[in-house]
Amino acid sequence: MTETELKEYIAGIRPADAAAAELAAARQAKLAKPPGSLGKLEDISIKLAGITGRILNEIINCRVLVFAADNGVTREGVAVTPTSVTLAQCINMTRHKTGMSALAEYFGNSIRIYDVGIEKEFTYPGIENRKVRQGTDSIMRGPAMTRAETIAAISHGIAAADEAAHDGMDAVGVGEMGIGNTSTSAAVLAALTGRPASDTVGRGSGLTDEAFENKIKVVQKALEVNVPSACDPIDVISKVGGLDIAAMTGAFLGLAANRIPAVADGFISVTAALCAVKLCPAVRDFIFLSHASAERGYKIAADEIKLEPFMLLDMRLGEGSGCPIAFEVIKAACAAMNGMAMFEEASIDDAYLDDIRCRV
Amino acid sequence: MTETELKEYIAGIRPADAAAAELAAARQAKLAKPPGSLGKLEDISIKLAGITGRILNEIINCRVLVFAADNGVTREGVAVTPTSVTLAQCINMTRHKTGMSALAEYFGNSIRIYDVGIEKEFTYPGIENRKVRQGTDSIMRGPAMTRAETIAAISHGIAAADEAAHDGMDAVGVGEMGIGNTSTSAAVLAALTGRPASDTVGRGSGLTDEAFENKIKVVQKALEVNVPSACDPIDVISKVGGLDIAAMTGAFLGLAANRIPAVADGFISVTAALCAVKLCPAVRDFIFLSHASAERGYKIAADEIKLEPFMLLDMRLGEGSGCPIAFEVIKAACAAMNGMAMFEEASIDDAYLDDIRCRV
Repeated sequence: MTETELKEYIAGIRPADAAAAELAAARQAKLAKPPGSLGKLEDISIKLAGITGRILNEIINCRVLVFAADNGVTREGVAVTPTSVTLAQCINMTRHKTGMSALAEYFGNSIRIYDVGIEKEFTYPGIENRKVRQGTDSIMRGPAMTRAETIAAISHGIAAADEAAHDGMDAVGVGEMGIGNTSTSAAVLAALTGRPASDTVGRGSGLTDEAFENKIKVVQKALEVNVPSACDPIDVISKVGGLDIAAMTGAFLGLAANRIPAVADGFISVTAALCAVKLCPAVRDFIFLSHASAERGYKIAADEIKLEPFMLLDMRLGEGSGCPIAFEVIKAACAAMNGMAMFEEASIDDAYLDDIRCRV
Repeated sequence: MTETELKEYIAGIRPADAAAAELAAARQAKLAKPPGSLGKLEDISIKLAGITGRILNEIINCRVLVFAADNGVTREGVAVTPTSVTLAQCINMTRHKTGMSALAEYFGNSIRIYDVGIEKEFTYPGIENRKVRQGTDSIMRGPAMTRAETIAAISHGIAAADEAAHDGMDAVGVGEMGIGNTSTSAAVLAALTGRPASDTVGRGSGLTDEAFENKIKVVQKALEVNVPSACDPIDVISKVGGLDIAAMTGAFLGLAANRIPAVADGFISVTAALCAVKLCPAVRDFIFLSHASAERGYKIAADEIKLEPFMLLDMRLGEGSGCPIAFEVIKAACAAMNGMAMFEEASIDDAYLDDIRCRV
């Protein structure tokens, strides 16, 4: 996909179906309960109607997409985990042995793992080779990658969304595996919002105070060295992001284009969702936030997208680990919408209560 | 059950198995993830181990208990909904047409509906007759009921927990149906915590400003008229509570006695959970909070129990509607604990990556 083709693709993404959402809201208002008392479950059912164009929805087939890549910024000592863990955990995912994949297996969700930029050249069953390049460069010393490479990774994300649509998925989560990507996400979020690194950098997998201070400096330096343009998300991702974030951004675009509910996970995922929304505001109509990640910066990104998470689980694992649980919440929203009685059906008059089955 | 028998029963409730919880925490620490990165999912798995005495748990059979009763306080204009709705919604629950019951059916949870004090005399299939009396008196004008009636309702809650244990339930939610019970819960919470009614009274099913002011006055008056004793939860429930809250309190006691994970729903449920914890502090070890209810007072009760909810759904429907979703979160906690690799198993060495399946 060339940049021109990507721009055309984005221009083709239509917002939610406002008429369907309105009909769903009207149905919600008629369900036998105090208005608004199902809170976000009501909002979810209305948003789903806008996405699918159907008032009643059912979520059966769910998938978590994992985009894996290595990030050159790890060479600056920003992560406690060795970079070899990116690939090792992808292999463990194929065995359903990581947090997200254990949950996905339990709840019957499929997973797809895409290598968009792991450093090592390899083939492994269950890990799809979509490698754009072998890892990125350190964002502290220059751009992570070229603009063309970013667009290539975005295209792979779009293709993964197309594949999910082809496979009949009703909801899709967007996850990642990439040591160092809380640093790149913090840099991308800072660049997009104009905030300093000290606001967006968190402790990732568990840094000491000293390493945390260094991480802030690295991200701040990356912003100063690269001067990413806030109004050009592709420039931001190219310069201070990574192949994982780029592909995830593409996945959010592609899911919106395919009119499939897209579930963001934690900090990295919601940062990619923000990139997609900045590229195409209509994408917001298709995104659900799963859990309020404990990683610093999450709230800034969520607030910027103007969406609220469903869950309060203090999770900060990544991978897409919040998505399998979020699918259950979305299914619950459908179950309430589809199963509850309308007021006229629910009202049981005194004559009925006094009849043979209710003997006074 | 006499008061003496109840006291003996309570004295027999043992706290969680600290040794099993410790072993579960040790296993969590060995799972291949940054320590603590699964947040509350880790806490849940550890708490479950303490409850069951087993390090690994699986939640298969779940049930929501509904305790239904009418509350005399409705005569003071504290509710927008007519009292006939208590029974009508119980009937709708048997048809899986209410919020909680639609969710329970979808997720495969069983439900049991116990009439512990609906005003009308009736029999209806699926609604178990455990009526202590036909509704309570208005708490604004005197005690809701006698101490003996409160203990009778508590006993029915205990019996419902015993029944769930007999039926092999792995987790049980505690819900209610009782128009007026946000008023009685606010009064009970105020009495137990020493706070004024203006802190604990919320808008329930959606009161106007004027009706809301009246509700605060009614609850404050109930506290002044009855002078419930904060250190005697049975006195508090008898004077300013209701049969629904009493039975729910019993259910939390009974679930703890049977060592079954107990899931609280919203404001009324968490207030009953607080009553149970005040009667027997060990009960806290067995309680999970589901969602942060939007009803005012919820947070006060949750903070008082010193537990945190999992979900942020802005729900305020009651019935036990948060429980079916909470069961899914608890199942997720088990799936992660049971399915994830330990560090030694997850570490994939370079030799392996370089071997025949990972060709460089």
